[in-house]
Amino acid sequence: MDSAVSSFTYRTIATDGLARAGAIATAHGAVETPAFMPVGTTGTVKAMTADAVRATGAAIVLGNTYHLMLRPGAERIAALGGLHRFMDWPGPILTDSGGFQIMSLAKLRKLDADGVTFQSHIDGATHRLTPARAIAIQHLLDATITMALDECTQFPATHDQARASMQLSMRWAAASRQAFVPRPGYGLFGIVQGSVFPELRRASAEALTEIGFDGYAIGGLAVGEGQATMLAILDTTVPLLPHDRPRYLMGVGTPDDLIAAVQRGIDMFDCVIPTRGGRTGRAFTTHGIRNLRNARFADDAGPLDAACDCPACTRHPSAYLHHLFKSAEMLGPMLLTWHNLAYYQRLMRDMRAAIIAGRLHEFAAATRAAWQAPEDDA
Amino acid sequence: MDSAVSSFTYRTIATDGLARAGAIATAHGAVETPAFMPVGTTGTVKAMTADAVRATGAAIVLGNTYHLMLRPGAERIAALGGLHRFMDWPGPILTDSGGFQIMSLAKLRKLDADGVTFQSHIDGATHRLTPARAIAIQHLLDATITMALDECTQFPATHDQARASMQLSMRWAAASRQAFVPRPGYGLFGIVQGSVFPELRRASAEALTEIGFDGYAIGGLAVGEGQATMLAILDTTVPLLPHDRPRYLMGVGTPDDLIAAVQRGIDMFDCVIPTRGGRTGRAFTTHGIRNLRNARFADDAGPLDAACDCPACTRHPSAYLHHLFKSAEMLGPMLLTWHNLAYYQRLMRDMRAAIIAGRLHEFAAATRAAWQAPEDDA
Repeated sequence: MDSAVSSFTYRTIATDGLARAGAIATAHGAVETPAFMPVGTTGTVKAMTADAVRATGAAIVLGNTYHLMLRPGAERIAALGGLHRFMDWPGPILTDSGGFQIMSLAKLRKLDADGVTFQSHIDGATHRLTPARAIAIQHLLDATITMALDECTQFPATHDQARASMQLSMRWAAASRQAFVPRPGYGLFGIVQGSVFPELRRASAEALTEIGFDGYAIGGLAVGEGQATMLAILDTTVPLLPHDRPRYLMGVGTPDDLIAAVQRGIDMFDCVIPTRGGRTGRAFTTHGIRNLRNARFADDAGPLDAACDCPACTRHPSAYLHHLFKSAEMLGPMLLTWHNLAYYQRLMRDMRAAIIAGRLHEFAAATRAAWQAPEDDA
Repeated sequence: MDSAVSSFTYRTIATDGLARAGAIATAHGAVETPAFMPVGTTGTVKAMTADAVRATGAAIVLGNTYHLMLRPGAERIAALGGLHRFMDWPGPILTDSGGFQIMSLAKLRKLDADGVTFQSHIDGATHRLTPARAIAIQHLLDATITMALDECTQFPATHDQARASMQLSMRWAAASRQAFVPRPGYGLFGIVQGSVFPELRRASAEALTEIGFDGYAIGGLAVGEGQATMLAILDTTVPLLPHDRPRYLMGVGTPDDLIAAVQRGIDMFDCVIPTRGGRTGRAFTTHGIRNLRNARFADDAGPLDAACDCPACTRHPSAYLHHLFKSAEMLGPMLLTWHNLAYYQRLMRDMRAAIIAGRLHEFAAATRAAWQAPEDDA
């Protein structure tokens, strides 16, 4: 069963404490976990060709229901052969359900028990998203992994607000499950909500497990609660999730977040931090975070990160990257996004190898020690 | 002699009418002609990695003395190992002398017999460029082909203005020749000026030939005089240039310009048209110029140009490129610049093959016929 490419399966290969090294088999290929998914919101990982994304070692990318339903439209992408063909990514694609973006981007949103009505941030046109429609859109996009529609609970929220919001998300999760058309090698993930309240997270995890999903995401974190609170929620929530399904921490995070979350049993991540940083000159390296606009790079003949095999590091002196950012040349964001994604993918591969070797704790300590001054000038 | 890589040589391999197929041997490798040089003004071909530029088939790129002397500085690039290493382009690089950019970009420029004093468009700092300094900068950059400093004559100009300007450029050409430090496999080109006046062009060509250069450029064209006038100047000027040296038409042009100029004996070109067009959605294709922002591409499942082997054409439907431009995604300019440069390089290769086959006229007619509506919606 596990080895059948046509079946959506997760298999744990090794554990180290709570951390897991695993593999997801999908209709579009395998994903080794822990895995970081570059964010391709509108059908492109910003500033990267699909070949470049592949060259970093990424196996799966993320697309976004909210953005793609508005432009170019889900039916249009379906008519063009699906998102894989559209964006030249034959590998697995996970699509976010749109809940988070409606809360953060859309105008004049009106929530009701059955869905949300909102105005597009692009042209103000009115749209409606229900669990069934969110699932249908992701089907049209041909998403390998579909996310249930949820409401991303605002932060901070009172216990009452968080409970009501979580309960709404659980109703939508059930409706999403009903609307999802199973296909071999395709999966549907539910999303745990409940803000910073452990008992609400527990209720949410139990409700989702009762419904039954191919994987379980933890949403509503990294929204301002701080790393300590986020990790405390992981400590209480992850053990409640089925052990035979992948676990996905949505929208997280920094390299330090990734290590801490993998140590707590998370398998999958997505985050704009490496790509957004790549466009602003913020570099993630073996030695910590660096701001390439800093004058100290102006004459630096050495590589940005000697341990990195990306073109930015192997082909150019750091001074060139500095020059590109000072000159507002597009190649600066292109090369640095490539580098940051290569750094993230290497971190994930190294964590996986460390888990398999039973030395994740040592790896984490050594990696953090090498970040001598993680925020020195960034 | 011709085959020695360490010697800067030009060899004509075949002719077809006035058109020539040739090869330039340089210290940094060979350039087959006719050749189009992508413009890498500040040390980057905009929106392209060096690998992508190579993938289009380009053998030589252009850098710019004016831009690079201001930022990051010629001495700095020299300290970092030269422009080749800086921008990951071990192949031949031709550097413009800066004359054109001082006229078009710099503030408060003051011309005298010995050079030009100007203020940087970046920070207003005062700089001075003389023929000797322009040559020294290009030496520091490690330019394979150095251009003599010239004054790009304004258009329109009276005969008196054009003569005075041309004579100044000829004095600077002699001074440039004197300042140039010959190295095996490196070359210095002179630049013919004289505006639209054939007798001034003749005087300029004769003056340069008398001085003696490794190649001869024609400057001061494509500045508003129109294609017919430009071609008339080529008709009278090209035959005056030494037959055993490459001929370079600066800042030209559209695909139609390139064909017409090759038919008149030009070997080398540079122009921002394909790269600038790539950033604005203007595509050069087998079937003419296309504007990818046009709504007719919204549902187009076919390739932009079926004859093209670039990633934009082989990996994506045209609708994807349309979507990227409508969404202001960086990948739009990245993919379309790649495509446009691939188109230009293919045009040059095809012209070279046609010259060798003795059928450039037929090739030109067929190529133009295929541009059914060259400016239909661009």
